Amino acid sequence: MTATQSDRDAAGDRTPQPDIGHGSTTIATIAHEVGVSVATVSKVLNGRADVAPATRAKVEEILERYRYRRPTRRQATGTEQIDLVFHELDAVWAIHIIAGVEAVTTAAGVGVRIGQLAGQHHPPSTWLDGTLTRRPLGVVFVLCSPTQAQQQGLRRQRIPFVVVDTDSATSASVPTVGSNNWNGGMLATRHLIELGHRRLAVISGPEDVLCSRARVAGFRSAHDEAGIPVEPEFVRYAHFTATTGFAHGTALLDRPDRPTAIFAGSDMQAVGVLRAARRLGLDVPGDLSVVGYDNVPVAAWIDPPLTTVNQPLGDMAGTATRMVLDLARGVPPATSRIDLVTELVVRESTGPAPGD
Amino acid sequence: MTATQSDRDAAGDRTPQPDIGHGSTTIATIAHEVGVSVATVSKVLNGRADVAPATRAKVEEILERYRYRRPTRRQATGTEQIDLVFHELDAVWAIHIIAGVEAVTTAAGVGVRIGQLAGQHHPPSTWLDGTLTRRPLGVVFVLCSPTQAQQQGLRRQRIPFVVVDTDSATSASVPTVGSNNWNGGMLATRHLIELGHRRLAVISGPEDVLCSRARVAGFRSAHDEAGIPVEPEFVRYAHFTATTGFAHGTALLDRPDRPTAIFAGSDMQAVGVLRAARRLGLDVPGDLSVVGYDNVPVAAWIDPPLTTVNQPLGDMAGTATRMVLDLARGVPPATSRIDLVTELVVRESTGPAPGD
Repeated sequence: MTATQSDRDAAGDRTPQPDIGHGSTTIATIAHEVGVSVATVSKVLNGRADVAPATRAKVEEILERYRYRRPTRRQATGTEQIDLVFHELDAVWAIHIIAGVEAVTTAAGVGVRIGQLAGQHHPPSTWLDGTLTRRPLGVVFVLCSPTQAQQQGLRRQRIPFVVVDTDSATSASVPTVGSNNWNGGMLATRHLIELGHRRLAVISGPEDVLCSRARVAGFRSAHDEAGIPVEPEFVRYAHFTATTGFAHGTALLDRPDRPTAIFAGSDMQAVGVLRAARRLGLDVPGDLSVVGYDNVPVAAWIDPPLTTVNQPLGDMAGTATRMVLDLARGVPPATSRIDLVTELVVRESTGPAPGD
Repeated sequence: MTATQSDRDAAGDRTPQPDIGHGSTTIATIAHEVGVSVATVSKVLNGRADVAPATRAKVEEILERYRYRRPTRRQATGTEQIDLVFHELDAVWAIHIIAGVEAVTTAAGVGVRIGQLAGQHHPPSTWLDGTLTRRPLGVVFVLCSPTQAQQQGLRRQRIPFVVVDTDSATSASVPTVGSNNWNGGMLATRHLIELGHRRLAVISGPEDVLCSRARVAGFRSAHDEAGIPVEPEFVRYAHFTATTGFAHGTALLDRPDRPTAIFAGSDMQAVGVLRAARRLGLDVPGDLSVVGYDNVPVAAWIDPPLTTVNQPLGDMAGTATRMVLDLARGVPPATSRIDLVTELVVRESTGPAPGD
């Protein structure tokens, strides 16, 4: 990444720039072009509802054609805040994200407004207007991202945004903080192969979530590296819950050619796999090795203590928050995609392959 | 509670009312009395910093003497929000509180601003000014509460507040939502006594936290009811962590007269007790029965699945949020203290006393 690239647009927009008025177009120019009042353009920019749909569409079109951007940055007043938008709020790990964001915002004297999308991966169409009216310093999205239209609206008003992880291949123009999921899958699988395991299964997260596919890719790469074939039936995708861990664990362990090691997509899935093993009378790690993902606090305390991939959730959230606060002050990020390091924490749920 | 009581003040203030001007005193009256401008009084009310300390103190004194209250209520604009203030954010159960609050605010079109006090039980002195400047619809405090001075400042500006649970005996004038901790302690202990246990220990939360003492009181009441004496050495207070559960569990189980049942103050403490038992070669529930508290999702999945007291955290948070939103609309709560029902969830970590 060159300085030129990163200087181009604080909100991470680095599509080619047209010659017309970027950065200097005024609301008056836009109003003149559309043939409406300055007040009307202002209403559209601020997400107000009292503009006729046809007028709004026309104003939006001209704003986009001129690549209008709000000329001045807001001043922090001690009441400023950022928006933290979750895909959903029911997961135990979400608290580590919130604590990571909160640590940075508290130090900066900025508040955090929290929201969730009830499992959707993009905010609803009504979301943008409320956000433009509130004018947060910036928005941090967790496992969700704004639509193209929402990105345009935010950029125009110079409201920067950063995505933590991602549900699918996020455009390179959107600053993103993730963790190296491929590396996590690789580390977990290498550890098992080094212990002598040759029949390894993976239960990853949902297949339409990029991080799930990256972990499976790491699982495959470790196999390739060691010259061990991957059994297609041993690659599973499922939600990150104990229930799915139990169901897939039972299905895998009931097979005559059952795996001797299972790499789960979350610690909760791993807890479900552990129960499946107990139910079938299999000893962990004597008959079966199990690796989790996330390293939630309880992972160290269950029986057996869980070998797992530490995902630095608090650090990811803190990094995303610092990026958003920097962008709000006009400081562009050094890079638009940061992946924090994952590492394997070896405890007692993994051991030598049976018969080794 | 009578209608008269609950009607007196939307913010829950029911100390005796003086005759002078409550509800009708204007800022002009206050300014005249102190001998300052209306603008100065307004600055004090809105938490602005640019007022000399001596002047501020004088204005505060007269405001309180006249029991000044902001005359009008704010209108919801679609950008309104409530403040959610935590004692600390590092506990797994905090996510259930946040999800419970969020469900109610989303339905009401209100946002949530989240904050934490880094383990303190009252907000710092700087907290009030920021809050008065922001003007949230209301504040929900979790395991913390505003000081008397902060309560006065919030009431003057008609910013209602509700406390979820409490660190100590909260004044009856502060609306509070808790759960029936005494009942939780009683249910857990009765269950163990009914299973034939006569040597029962309790590891509760910190002794300076009211809910911890209430649970121990329930533990004692169940003993009294059955005519069984409580062994003083078997009553422990500790932080709600797996580490303290392990330490106290080890100390209790190492004794020649070890208990046959341990009632822990949280599921994480119980997980620590389970490890202490494993380390000493004790079977659960064969040699030792263990009861947890909270019913976090993982409690159902560990080995053995944990018998625990279900604390309705999401419902508590939702109820507190509804109370705050009602108060913001001028609707007084039916009662100033609501305790939601706790119930025992029996799983596999409890069984008949050894030798029974």
